[in-house]
Amino acid sequence: MIPAFEWKKFKRGPQVVLPKDAGLLLGYAGLGEGDRIAEAGSGSGWLTVFLANVAGEKGKVYSYERREDFLELAKKNIVKAGFENRVEFKLKDAAQGFDEKDLDCIVLDCGDSHLLLANAFGSLRKNGLCAGFMPNAEQVNAFVTEGEKQGFEHWLSLESIVREWLARERGTRPKNVGLTHTSFLTLLKKP
Amino acid sequence: MIPAFEWKKFKRGPQVVLPKDAGLLLGYAGLGEGDRIAEAGSGSGWLTVFLANVAGEKGKVYSYERREDFLELAKKNIVKAGFENRVEFKLKDAAQGFDEKDLDCIVLDCGDSHLLLANAFGSLRKNGLCAGFMPNAEQVNAFVTEGEKQGFEHWLSLESIVREWLARERGTRPKNVGLTHTSFLTLLKKP
Amino acid sequence: MIPAFEWKKFKRGPQVVLPKDAGLLLGYAGLGEGDRIAEAGSGSGWLTVFLANVAGEKGKVYSYERREDFLELAKKNIVKAGFENRVEFKLKDAAQGFDEKDLDCIVLDCGDSHLLLANAFGSLRKNGLCAGFMPNAEQVNAFVTEGEKQGFEHWLSLESIVREWLARERGTRPKNVGLTHTSFLTLLKKP
Amino acid sequence: MIPAFEWKKFKRGPQVVLPKDAGLLLGYAGLGEGDRIAEAGSGSGWLTVFLANVAGEKGKVYSYERREDFLELAKKNIVKAGFENRVEFKLKDAAQGFDEKDLDCIVLDCGDSHLLLANAFGSLRKNGLCAGFMPNAEQVNAFVTEGEKQGFEHWLSLESIVREWLARERGTRPKNVGLTHTSFLTLLKKP
Repeated sequence: MIPAFEWKKFKRGPQVVLPKDAGLLLGYAGLGEGDRIAEAGSGSGWLTVFLANVAGEKGKVYSYERREDFLELAKKNIVKAGFENRVEFKLKDAAQGFDEKDLDCIVLDCGDSHLLLANAFGSLRKNGLCAGFMPNAEQVNAFVTEGEKQGFEHWLSLESIVREWLARERGTRPKNVGLTHTSFLTLLKKP
Repeated sequence: MIPAFEWKKFKRGPQVVLPKDAGLLLGYAGLGEGDRIAEAGSGSGWLTVFLANVAGEKGKVYSYERREDFLELAKKNIVKAGFENRVEFKLKDAAQGFDEKDLDCIVLDCGDSHLLLANAFGSLRKNGLCAGFMPNAEQVNAFVTEGEKQGFEHWLSLESIVREWLARERGTRPKNVGLTHTSFLTLLKKP
Repeated sequence: MIPAFEWKKFKRGPQVVLPKDAGLLLGYAGLGEGDRIAEAGSGSGWLTVFLANVAGEKGKVYSYERREDFLELAKKNIVKAGFENRVEFKLKDAAQGFDEKDLDCIVLDCGDSHLLLANAFGSLRKNGLCAGFMPNAEQVNAFVTEGEKQGFEHWLSLESIVREWLARERGTRPKNVGLTHTSFLTLLKKP
Repeated sequence: MIPAFEWKKFKRGPQVVLPKDAGLLLGYAGLGEGDRIAEAGSGSGWLTVFLANVAGEKGKVYSYERREDFLELAKKNIVKAGFENRVEFKLKDAAQGFDEKDLDCIVLDCGDSHLLLANAFGSLRKNGLCAGFMPNAEQVNAFVTEGEKQGFEHWLSLESIVREWLARERGTRPKNVGLTHTSFLTLLKKP
């Protein structure tokens, strides 16, 4: 168990997937023990920690990143989590292909995720999922359109608005100010 | 991996925890391989499947339910998921106490969850989490108030609004009608 | 027309009703030209401006406030809007009653709004509306419960989450941070 | 006052602007007595009723519609509201231009609203507002992009999620199912 209040031990670099969005993926994709998952890119390795945490020692996370500095940061966070045996880092642009086959899930979280969909399709098992995190609505559309062209089924595109609530003696209400947007999550299924 | 589109194989009885709320718990609590988790009640066993899926074979889920018919239903769903070795079902009212000690997490999802907090406190490890799913705002307040009285710290109360988006040639937008509320999630920490 | 970007000319004191919530009231209550409306309290007079703007010269806003400093502030804002002929300010605690009868709408926006409901009922016309702005869920419940006791019908309790969106060349998305809560709005109908 | 519960007297044809969205416009644009407003198209005339209600007898609503059947429906609703003196209906495609000048506000609610922006710019007064209701994110982007090209400032793009709440003896919570999307609202300002 790595509750969000322990995340301060992890370093925060470039893109970071927050508990609200990691949870959205975990909940809908149903990731669990034994899953073989690839992600591109590693970013700060936060999502990598989430994925390794549920995939367990029987599972594996293949984490692709083209920038060496990001990869080093992600590695440090994985070591802090104690998951180095569950993760294989690759200094490689996933646009050149994923080395694995028959993966359960591939998570794309980079600028042009839709350009990786042809490769992703080839590396997933039947009924495997390709998940994309994207901040803009147009990216969701491009991801779905390109995904369908590559043979995927568009299963779900989701947005999660999470509010923190105050519960005090004088009453219960949401906090006044907070996060109003992070990313959309699109889930494509390989038929 | 048990993606939500495979959930049709599970039977739907009384209360059901949906992917959006299970994911909220998984994301913030960071549940993962090896965790020892208790829940009350079992309901239809949907959350039980989520918990067993991430806790893996090294973890364990202790599922308390006082109604025999619910327990039978939950058991069937766990067998369908293939997780019977990871779950121990108990036909017992958790108001009489949890049998385990040093648990990582206890999830309460019943009418009067706040009445179980004294027992939950005693059965959690240090830094363990007690999570409560509750539909009404007043229940959140009662849960937090009683929790603090029992020695818990109120870490977070959350609400997740998840919308499904359409991505079509003519444009990208949320669906017009959908779920607008399920449950609040409160997370208490044993200091 | 007083678009929100012109509101910087108005002074901001105690409680302020924002465009998102004023608009919620205007939309659902359908306030318009000729309406006779009371409010308690005046606060900074922002809602007073909204109400006078739509009620027009044929309408009237009766604005009750027990604190003289707030009342002076509200008056200044109304003068700036040029609506002094449409508003009658009263240095009076509305808990002692509204002086008017057959009002179309009464808006309550003070700490214990539910205590004013008996008075509000007596001063509204048949099918008139009593609107309450309240930050906490428990206040909504108390308002509805007391309202029904006084003879009102609970028509609607609403919450509005308004997000600002960015539309740029690189894509369209909500802003990352913003208001996540202001008030609930409850509308009671005098049958 | 035309509260939403009285809207059943109005006929419902093609596109209908609901209280949540009409209120968003009223709140942010600050429409009020005396305003001169154009809209395209009339649709079922629901927004026309909202606009005439606040513009009052000193104001005027110019309502453009190219389909005769829609125009007839909108006219009937305006007569039912008693606002026939405040509204001038025009069987005309607004793409051919608005006949008025120095308008306070122009509301566009048709398929290709962005194509009307050049005309809208010419017919607004300085500091006047052009408001667009659009279901898709890409339309918001096209509206803003074309608006800026025509000389408008992009003031605000908004989305309002309105939830109905239940307040009962057993607690207070949002309804489980409801509207999750209608339209985005973009407000452009003529500098």
